[in-house]
Amino acid sequence: MPRYKLTIEYDGSSFVGWQRQDNGRSVQGAIEAAVLGFSGETVTVKGAGRTDAGVHALGQVGHVDLARDWPAETVRNAINAHLIKARDAVAILVVDLVTEEFDARFSALKRHYVYRIVNRAAPLTVLRDRAWRVPRQLDADAMHEAAQRLVGRHDFTTFRSVQCQAKNPVRTLDRLDVARSGEVIEIHASAQSFLHNQIRSFAGSLKLVGEGHWSADTMTAALEARDRKKCGPVAPPDGLYFASVDY
Amino acid sequence: MPRYKLTIEYDGSSFVGWQRQDNGRSVQGAIEAAVLGFSGETVTVKGAGRTDAGVHALGQVGHVDLARDWPAETVRNAINAHLIKARDAVAILVVDLVTEEFDARFSALKRHYVYRIVNRAAPLTVLRDRAWRVPRQLDADAMHEAAQRLVGRHDFTTFRSVQCQAKNPVRTLDRLDVARSGEVIEIHASAQSFLHNQIRSFAGSLKLVGEGHWSADTMTAALEARDRKKCGPVAPPDGLYFASVDY
Repeated sequence: MPRYKLTIEYDGSSFVGWQRQDNGRSVQGAIEAAVLGFSGETVTVKGAGRTDAGVHALGQVGHVDLARDWPAETVRNAINAHLIKARDAVAILVVDLVTEEFDARFSALKRHYVYRIVNRAAPLTVLRDRAWRVPRQLDADAMHEAAQRLVGRHDFTTFRSVQCQAKNPVRTLDRLDVARSGEVIEIHASAQSFLHNQIRSFAGSLKLVGEGHWSADTMTAALEARDRKKCGPVAPPDGLYFASVDY
Repeated sequence: MPRYKLTIEYDGSSFVGWQRQDNGRSVQGAIEAAVLGFSGETVTVKGAGRTDAGVHALGQVGHVDLARDWPAETVRNAINAHLIKARDAVAILVVDLVTEEFDARFSALKRHYVYRIVNRAAPLTVLRDRAWRVPRQLDADAMHEAAQRLVGRHDFTTFRSVQCQAKNPVRTLDRLDVARSGEVIEIHASAQSFLHNQIRSFAGSLKLVGEGHWSADTMTAALEARDRKKCGPVAPPDGLYFASVDY
């Protein structure tokens, strides 16, 4: 059976998350319904990352096996046509025919996320549900400096959800950059893999640094404590974007 | 009575337009309701431009007279609090106390708009209702070149709605720049004032240039014809943003 790699964009605010669930519309379920609609096949689409409800993607990656050998562009256009018909805020950006060795999840070498903060008093309009509004003035340089304390190979117990199902809390964080452009502050995070709620835990703690409540040393102490209770309040999903995956 | 200048952002997709109307929620009506909510006063908010249904603003400007002499920041926060409560996608970014000579509409020296195109086959998700998706590959350089034929003082009869109520179709277009950044093409337009649907008429005609259907000379011929029938299909409101006003 031919295997197709899907590069996927979505507005997470109208979904219960990537993963198929009983309590509402999932991104995975929307794509699987679209595949069924055009091919008549009931399939499972496997994703590189299970984003939570409200989390967006600019370049989530999935793979799917189809019985028939369609041209890649036909697969893309047909899935998109069915997604549009269902009014689902999901789009297949690119489809590539890949070999059976390719696995969207296990072949991933690096995952890239962006967390977007809008640092202003006024509520959000065009970016509503698409960023985290933080009213108090944030010091992005201090946030960037503190973020460097987290880069590298660490036990990230402090920065993962208590529901995280990973056996090992040790991960290697390759990048955690914070930069301001006008009222927007972006946090860029890269690693081979992340723990559950890890980036939102970073964002929530970095906000405390930006507001002057935490120093870079507080961040180091929180990391070294390996204690979930030392984490700052977890940032909302609205600001998080699954940007891309390297294979 | 103290006069306040309001700098206003909104997501136009949930409104019938700037102007108060009988057939649904307007931006003007939403702000007036918020002012009533915090001050008890029934007011009229005058805007620098009457944006159509679906058109957004990053920096629309309005003015309002209030009986009581509130601090500007109080006015901003109180209006925003009522807009949030009403779930209106409108935000007051800045409030300035101004003199009675200031009029949001008649004091405007220059208005700046941006029209945003996403040039790709896949449907929009995070930018749904916030850009115009054009599937066919557009030549942004050719669009920019043709746009320069429109800059200057001209009779823009070709590029205004038949419903346009302006007595004089002559306007001076100060800027019409087209530039690509990845899959996004932005058209930046500046003038002291615009005719009804003028920028969407430009955008729709420039798309034909980008697709290779029109040359720069076709654009000149359309302008010189002073004939609405020579205009390209008007672009949708989704991509249009009222960016700012100079006073």
